[in-house]
Amino acid sequence: MVYHKMKAEIIAVGTELLMGQIANTNAQFLSRELSEMGIDVHYHHVVGDNMQRVVELIQTVLKRCDLIITTGGLGPTMDDLTKDAIAQALNKEMVLDEESKTEIENFFSMIHKNMTINNMRQAYFPEGSIILKNPNGTAPGCIVESEGKAIVVLPGPPMEMQPMFYNHVLPYLSKKTGSFLRSKHIKIFGMGESSLETALMHLIDGQTNPTLATYATGGELLLRVTAKAESEKEALTLLEPVCDEISEILGSKIYSYTNESLAQVVINKLYEQKKHVSFAESCTGGMLTSMLIDIPGASNVINESFVTYSNEAKINRLNVDPATLEEHGAVSEQTAAEMAKGLREATGCDIAVSVTGIAGPEDAGDKKAGLVYISLYDGKKATTIKYQGRSNREYNRRFSSLNALNMVRLCLLGEQ
Amino acid sequence: MVYHKMKAEIIAVGTELLMGQIANTNAQFLSRELSEMGIDVHYHHVVGDNMQRVVELIQTVLKRCDLIITTGGLGPTMDDLTKDAIAQALNKEMVLDEESKTEIENFFSMIHKNMTINNMRQAYFPEGSIILKNPNGTAPGCIVESEGKAIVVLPGPPMEMQPMFYNHVLPYLSKKTGSFLRSKHIKIFGMGESSLETALMHLIDGQTNPTLATYATGGELLLRVTAKAESEKEALTLLEPVCDEISEILGSKIYSYTNESLAQVVINKLYEQKKHVSFAESCTGGMLTSMLIDIPGASNVINESFVTYSNEAKINRLNVDPATLEEHGAVSEQTAAEMAKGLREATGCDIAVSVTGIAGPEDAGDKKAGLVYISLYDGKKATTIKYQGRSNREYNRRFSSLNALNMVRLCLLGEQ
Repeated sequence: MVYHKMKAEIIAVGTELLMGQIANTNAQFLSRELSEMGIDVHYHHVVGDNMQRVVELIQTVLKRCDLIITTGGLGPTMDDLTKDAIAQALNKEMVLDEESKTEIENFFSMIHKNMTINNMRQAYFPEGSIILKNPNGTAPGCIVESEGKAIVVLPGPPMEMQPMFYNHVLPYLSKKTGSFLRSKHIKIFGMGESSLETALMHLIDGQTNPTLATYATGGELLLRVTAKAESEKEALTLLEPVCDEISEILGSKIYSYTNESLAQVVINKLYEQKKHVSFAESCTGGMLTSMLIDIPGASNVINESFVTYSNEAKINRLNVDPATLEEHGAVSEQTAAEMAKGLREATGCDIAVSVTGIAGPEDAGDKKAGLVYISLYDGKKATTIKYQGRSNREYNRRFSSLNALNMVRLCLLGEQ
Repeated sequence: MVYHKMKAEIIAVGTELLMGQIANTNAQFLSRELSEMGIDVHYHHVVGDNMQRVVELIQTVLKRCDLIITTGGLGPTMDDLTKDAIAQALNKEMVLDEESKTEIENFFSMIHKNMTINNMRQAYFPEGSIILKNPNGTAPGCIVESEGKAIVVLPGPPMEMQPMFYNHVLPYLSKKTGSFLRSKHIKIFGMGESSLETALMHLIDGQTNPTLATYATGGELLLRVTAKAESEKEALTLLEPVCDEISEILGSKIYSYTNESLAQVVINKLYEQKKHVSFAESCTGGMLTSMLIDIPGASNVINESFVTYSNEAKINRLNVDPATLEEHGAVSEQTAAEMAKGLREATGCDIAVSVTGIAGPEDAGDKKAGLVYISLYDGKKATTIKYQGRSNREYNRRFSSLNALNMVRLCLLGEQ
């Protein structure tokens, strides 16, 4: 099978983008999808609702790439000129598509609104177009082919554009590139992006199919493994041994094979084991508890938490010994451990976790911003970890919260 | 004064954008700012870290517009090539800026990290550049002028790019367009974007200078009032009467005239009045406390909070009467009021605030998702508000947290 490495450019049409009223998230979506298919995206462009500029841009771009995807400019108003501009750029006629005409008429009858003459513009396409149905709006898309190249024309609203991409464009491009794609999304905690890449270097460097890509978002790490084949079955067969090897290398650092959040995984595991967790939060200040309560169903696994920001709160709520605070300070292994033990006694929860640290951005005496202790006590064993974060308050609080959730996960796996 | 209508294009440099790892929000920010200044943006472009493509794009674009703004590609690695590409496109040399060199060295000495030789690349600029300092990172920006046209070169991270735009680029462009812009950022809570527009309709519709624009972000409402004049003084003179009128219309719905967050305003006011707040959170689950503790200095105004998610926690920590829970339910005015009173007794804080509600997305019996009660007790007076949110859990929790902060603000203003 000859694999043709396509070059693509993405063009968004719409003055609202040039006015900054919206961000061009369509380009991001399409880039991610195309890059996963092994199609190189060389440029994004945004152009306003101006016939001359759109025509010129399409002519320029078509000279240097194999595939153009446009978004926007398919509405019923005279401002919406993408299809006309493409026809003009390629020197094609606009022709009426009877099926689209009927569907637009049906849509208006369904929503009990009157159709204007302009709405019929949405049933005209450059001659020879492949029409892409739009069950989520009135603007069908289309694919216009010319001299072995393709222009894929999609509507602007993401709710219409994305399903059209998955339902029509992905199969079209799979056929064109001669490949079927299937991905696994593996979530990882407990290592940085660069250590992950080092650990999997032999898989990342050597292999072209499946390919591996890492993404770090807000402290959680995503590894995407993508196989390309001529059928879904063949793609899965390619994925399996690589995912098995990754699983063996990373072990319990992997918390999900289905792109769940860490909080969701922890809730699921607590629920399976019918256990309740509570948190005593100092520097995280409620963020940790909030991460769990973000997830519907959290009430099954958490009854309460304490935000004990001051020393007095640590003494009054968690029975921390004032002498411990005096001797070791609020940010210390000893205080963290006493907080967790006291929390479990006060609440009767199964797993008690405390967090105490210097959130930053300023250092506190000889303790640097980012110094954090997290302690977990499950009635049998106490574990306390220490790490040094950064001078960034938001980062420290978020990363500490994720770290605490991960300790709960490891405890539930029996790997505390 | 001749007002020159400038034509601009925005170029983002970075393969991560073409891979879809991030959205090009910088283009949106810059477009909004430029369009507000009366500068027309004709295109956005995104191009990867590829020298030839960046050079070609700059040469093409420079032919047809007066102003190019680039973002990204100013980092220390060999991939970061924006300045080199501009120098090449304009046939200029790269020269070392001694001041930037010193600042980069100081930055590394401050964060106690070793500098690599590559970091020095950030101190080189196309000859004749105006250097733009970057107090928020290591990459200075620059402005390169050529034949009456300007290329403004900004870093990619929005936290670095936006301040650099406001501090250096806005004044530069003001001078270039012959108009001086000055904005007031008024923050509002307690009304929706459309009610705000209705209340200020006569100011929004009629006026061209100052102009008014509203932005809603995460439940907080921003009104930007911008005056254009030939001097800063004249701009301020234009702003004053309009801002006074807005102030009279909106009254205490305005919480900041300087673009602060609601949490920041609440912290400042508590600190001024030497008061402490505590929260008893049910549906918000720690998010409310976390919003305050997000802000450095929170430890001056908050000692502790309770997340009382279960009924038992409400009884044990806040002394809520089990009969109240039985009779009215956990989500009721009565329970909210008892939670706030019990919280103040338990913690000795000055202002105690409780939140109880149905976070959603599911309804709970005859209580709809989004039903929330918030109660505030300051030892003298108890106030409880009720409102109906949506079926969106994230929205309900966030909006409830902001509403609770706003109650604290109003209480501190004596407007409870």
